[in-house]
Amino acid sequence: MELLKERIRKDGVIKEGNVLKVDSFINHQMDIKLMNEIGKEFKRIFSDVQIDKILTIEASGIGIAAIVAQYFDVPMVFAKKAQSINLDGEMLTASVVSFTHKKKYQIIVAKRFISEGENVLIIDDFLANGCAAQGLMEVVESAGAKVQGIGIVIEKGFQDGGKNFRERGIRVESLAIVESMDAENQTIVFRDDK
Amino acid sequence: MELLKERIRKDGVIKEGNVLKVDSFINHQMDIKLMNEIGKEFKRIFSDVQIDKILTIEASGIGIAAIVAQYFDVPMVFAKKAQSINLDGEMLTASVVSFTHKKKYQIIVAKRFISEGENVLIIDDFLANGCAAQGLMEVVESAGAKVQGIGIVIEKGFQDGGKNFRERGIRVESLAIVESMDAENQTIVFRDDK
Repeated sequence: MELLKERIRKDGVIKEGNVLKVDSFINHQMDIKLMNEIGKEFKRIFSDVQIDKILTIEASGIGIAAIVAQYFDVPMVFAKKAQSINLDGEMLTASVVSFTHKKKYQIIVAKRFISEGENVLIIDDFLANGCAAQGLMEVVESAGAKVQGIGIVIEKGFQDGGKNFRERGIRVESLAIVESMDAENQTIVFRDDK
Repeated sequence: MELLKERIRKDGVIKEGNVLKVDSFINHQMDIKLMNEIGKEFKRIFSDVQIDKILTIEASGIGIAAIVAQYFDVPMVFAKKAQSINLDGEMLTASVVSFTHKKKYQIIVAKRFISEGENVLIIDDFLANGCAAQGLMEVVESAGAKVQGIGIVIEKGFQDGGKNFRERGIRVESLAIVESMDAENQTIVFRDDK
């Protein structure tokens, strides 16, 4: 998605340790116009499959998933990261190790919000080692529902998450795949750059 | 907002301890159509003031605020609840005590995302004792920006948050104000019910 790649080049900040900061337009401040273009693009890409529900994980995926869900005209569910006193009933859970925060946590979705046979599109802002998306897949599968695909805004193509999913035949569609980036010169190469 | 109150009556679940669960349509699974109606309603209510930015707090406020921001055609910023390795630069912070989780946390907004003189609308799903909204107000004021109002989806009118803000002359607009609720009979009374 050229609009997104241009924006990452313009406003993304590369930090040492393969950190790409997009907090001025995606995951702290959100450019809602850009999110709408992202929503339209995911709808275009996944227009060949039935989608009954959008699933993401708190926190930064929620804003994107809410906007994306508008274009599919389906409900959005966000997985929670910690047991809360407001959560009860039967729960679907999976364990995830966070790359950003370097800790392990449980993701939780109330079982009644993912039904057997439903077609689910997983949406998230980043895909790196794929642990969050893997946890979401496990949650969907444990409900007897089907993951129709994983829609990612920015994939770190130099980490293994996307590759591993694709090798397993899971459809991963990333709007921008970072092949490499250089904190010193603030340069970034996307997979399909010529 | 009648549509919202009807939905709360239909799908809200009242638990002991004054807990109102709306997780089937607001804060775990989101009904995006309802969120759009909520966005339109906030735009209508706040159409008399200039709004330059929507501010909310992770996690459950994000989806609502993203949809609301569309109707104001402005960026949305969400405050974070814990220091992350991806956050750097100058930060605006405030302390908040969570009613739901019964713990204290810091809320953090990068200073560059709220500018002096900006007109900010604070959006959140719930208002109870008002601690989260108070923290967001402090963040806005510490940036030299102006809180034009606080837009709340569901206010617990039997707790003091809304009352305290209004007594201080702060504009709080809640789409549904719960006056009382009864877990045993699953009945709920809204402030403007006849």
